[in-house]
Amino acid sequence: MKMQSARQHWHELTNTNRLCQFIDVILRSYGQVMLQNNPLSGLIFLVGVILGGYSAGKPQIGLACLLAVISANVVAYLYQLNHKAWQQGIYGFNACLIGIALPTFCENSLYLWCSIVLATILSVFITQAFNTILQQWCLPCLTTPFVLTTWLFLLATPSLSALTLQPPATSGAQFSSYSLLHLVPDSILGIAEVFLFNSTLAGIIFLAGLAVNSLKIAIYALAGSVLAIGIALLYGGQITIISLGLYSFNAILTAITLATFSSNQDVKTSFYIVFGIILTVFTQAALTTLLKPFAIPVLTMPFILVSWLWLSFNQTLNQR
Amino acid sequence: MKMQSARQHWHELTNTNRLCQFIDVILRSYGQVMLQNNPLSGLIFLVGVILGGYSAGKPQIGLACLLAVISANVVAYLYQLNHKAWQQGIYGFNACLIGIALPTFCENSLYLWCSIVLATILSVFITQAFNTILQQWCLPCLTTPFVLTTWLFLLATPSLSALTLQPPATSGAQFSSYSLLHLVPDSILGIAEVFLFNSTLAGIIFLAGLAVNSLKIAIYALAGSVLAIGIALLYGGQITIISLGLYSFNAILTAITLATFSSNQDVKTSFYIVFGIILTVFTQAALTTLLKPFAIPVLTMPFILVSWLWLSFNQTLNQR
Amino acid sequence: MKMQSARQHWHELTNTNRLCQFIDVILRSYGQVMLQNNPLSGLIFLVGVILGGYSAGKPQIGLACLLAVISANVVAYLYQLNHKAWQQGIYGFNACLIGIALPTFCENSLYLWCSIVLATILSVFITQAFNTILQQWCLPCLTTPFVLTTWLFLLATPSLSALTLQPPATSGAQFSSYSLLHLVPDSILGIAEVFLFNSTLAGIIFLAGLAVNSLKIAIYALAGSVLAIGIALLYGGQITIISLGLYSFNAILTAITLATFSSNQDVKTSFYIVFGIILTVFTQAALTTLLKPFAIPVLTMPFILVSWLWLSFNQTLNQR
Repeated sequence: MKMQSARQHWHELTNTNRLCQFIDVILRSYGQVMLQNNPLSGLIFLVGVILGGYSAGKPQIGLACLLAVISANVVAYLYQLNHKAWQQGIYGFNACLIGIALPTFCENSLYLWCSIVLATILSVFITQAFNTILQQWCLPCLTTPFVLTTWLFLLATPSLSALTLQPPATSGAQFSSYSLLHLVPDSILGIAEVFLFNSTLAGIIFLAGLAVNSLKIAIYALAGSVLAIGIALLYGGQITIISLGLYSFNAILTAITLATFSSNQDVKTSFYIVFGIILTVFTQAALTTLLKPFAIPVLTMPFILVSWLWLSFNQTLNQR
Repeated sequence: MKMQSARQHWHELTNTNRLCQFIDVILRSYGQVMLQNNPLSGLIFLVGVILGGYSAGKPQIGLACLLAVISANVVAYLYQLNHKAWQQGIYGFNACLIGIALPTFCENSLYLWCSIVLATILSVFITQAFNTILQQWCLPCLTTPFVLTTWLFLLATPSLSALTLQPPATSGAQFSSYSLLHLVPDSILGIAEVFLFNSTLAGIIFLAGLAVNSLKIAIYALAGSVLAIGIALLYGGQITIISLGLYSFNAILTAITLATFSSNQDVKTSFYIVFGIILTVFTQAALTTLLKPFAIPVLTMPFILVSWLWLSFNQTLNQR
Repeated sequence: MKMQSARQHWHELTNTNRLCQFIDVILRSYGQVMLQNNPLSGLIFLVGVILGGYSAGKPQIGLACLLAVISANVVAYLYQLNHKAWQQGIYGFNACLIGIALPTFCENSLYLWCSIVLATILSVFITQAFNTILQQWCLPCLTTPFVLTTWLFLLATPSLSALTLQPPATSGAQFSSYSLLHLVPDSILGIAEVFLFNSTLAGIIFLAGLAVNSLKIAIYALAGSVLAIGIALLYGGQITIISLGLYSFNAILTAITLATFSSNQDVKTSFYIVFGIILTVFTQAALTTLLKPFAIPVLTMPFILVSWLWLSFNQTLNQR
């Protein structure tokens, strides 16, 4: 009841006060990283990002992420792009991920901060251009702007050497067998990895952010993560990588997206959501091999490819 | 006359008996691998696949291929996809190739058989999704589902190590000069390579399968193969590779496809079919270089790229 | 006044004399390499190409380029493709670049000349097919046919060894610091690099060719080149590469294209042209990393990708 009235109060404020409206857009941009068009989810995700940055020993990530989201939304506002999409945080969620990814992969420097601003502005242009191009097939651009922009800057570093890459962190423990006791904590770690963090606490916060908007989606996310770990274990994936949740984060996004976009709730739909999660695990493994010669991470590309495939397929079912 | 009446009898049976209809769809799925919508061609191809598997020392290929075609068509039927396309074997021919490719490239294991079923179901979804996407330009998806799915599983093997790759077979003889006496047998070997087999007998069977449906197409296939060998020899291709028919199989598919889709029979059309075959040889060589760092075979990708280009070009000619 | 009457005289001649019309198309094909639909610009570019070939120690380039442009336009004429586009040189400018690129990268031989003719015919088909495909989004194919065709032949060389690659020229001087005195000559070198030449004289001629059609575009080209050098210097690009104009040529094409296609002249448009040039430099660096395992040059791909992005974005602005 209190929650309800607080929400209504905030809604009225955003309609009358322009600063509140802008804050609302910023929070929804955070929320949209996991497809939640809800400022409270966004606020919780923001807290998770700040904490995640601290636990990774890079407190600047929280600030970089906020700067990225603000500059993306300012640019989208100035260019008067689709206003409704802007209000829902559509122009900000890719910037949010860029603001975490670039400081995670690159050393801190003035060049890094310049690159973050450049990259976030670029992500707005890519979002707009891709939405136009994909409109033909009624497909959303998802996190393509984030993936392409981050790859662009990482791939440019060998030639434009002012931006320097962080040496990759050596993962501590090496496991030879997997204990099922780790299944739930590792699945939660997978949720943290959606925002590129390796922290169970951050994972719990992100899960809470999902749950305040939709308990169903929170359950889908966790189930997707558990299923992905199971498939990777069965098919002989490396246990160290599985334990870090690196097979899970794309599967979680696939699960959320397919559950959000599927109108039907029948057996066939459930079957192909499960199938989509299995496919995400294989795509993750395949893209890892493909990107190895270029030394760039797969980011959320597996989720994008699988979701586009499933959404195209789903359309043809609904057309009949 | 007898042939005619047998065909009519079968046609009546497929209309009344559901099992016969399903068998008809299975056979047409085999036929569609070389674009022949004909159950008799399909039956002959099926025999060729079984024999090819035996001659390659892998008798399980025949069974794997049949399992793949059946499961693809069952899934397409359950999801009630385009019924007319289903009847013509459109949802099955990619599965047929997957059912040959995976046991050829991977070691026999329970994981292999699971992967075959997963991959064939996936190929149905990709077929449907790609047909929707490519509809905008009136292009067929050809063998893209086969190529993408096979690459996916092969690329996933280093990470998901339960599925293990076969060590590549060392080709026996190394030739330093080419005898023209080999031109016809090598061209027939090229036809066998469409189904990934290295057996002249299988090649003859597949050629017969083409001929029972259309003598013209059989001649086009053989001529395409001869021409591709000629171009590869002229441009300094490696003779061992040429002799295995590895420059021919894509050229054969290009020749069949362009001959099938071209309505006109004038000089300009003939010229660009020849040009398409030449281009296929170059694309085969270029893709071999591109895929080398990833250690995956080109499969039928050269044929797909060239055919899409030619079909798009052809459309603009017909629009006028 | 004299210029005006000469132009009018030429225009009348092209309407009455078929040979003059064909010469006009050939010249405009040269002009279109930098988007100038003007036979005089084209004539100046032709002179620049011949001189550039001599200064590179490969006088055959001038002839190869002319042969390429002629054969492309003959094929486009025979296949009766879009007549208006043909008259504007749209079917010839990719052939012009192929006619320079192949003799630059490959050793002189009969195979080279065969490949040039094959490649130019192919570029006409690709131009037509891509224009059909890209029509959906009102995007031009730009220099994609040149890039794809050149990559095709370069990638095919390891397998089809009759066409042999030139060993890459070792660049002479290695610089450790950059003198601003070199900024203007290096920017002009960048203009020469659009036609793959490393000659200041050729650069001045190409700049003059731009200026006779549009002084504004010539200034944009030079400014784009200067800006690209500045960005590359700031971000720690290798000075030897910057001095050769290798960060400039794509930026120049981006500047010309965006200035040509943008109808508005406001601050927002200027801002995103500048942003487009910055992005071109980063894309150049990123593609260099991506193409390294395949040992092929980026050619004008960075310009194509950035221009498509900007033109798609621009459309959505104009739609409102």
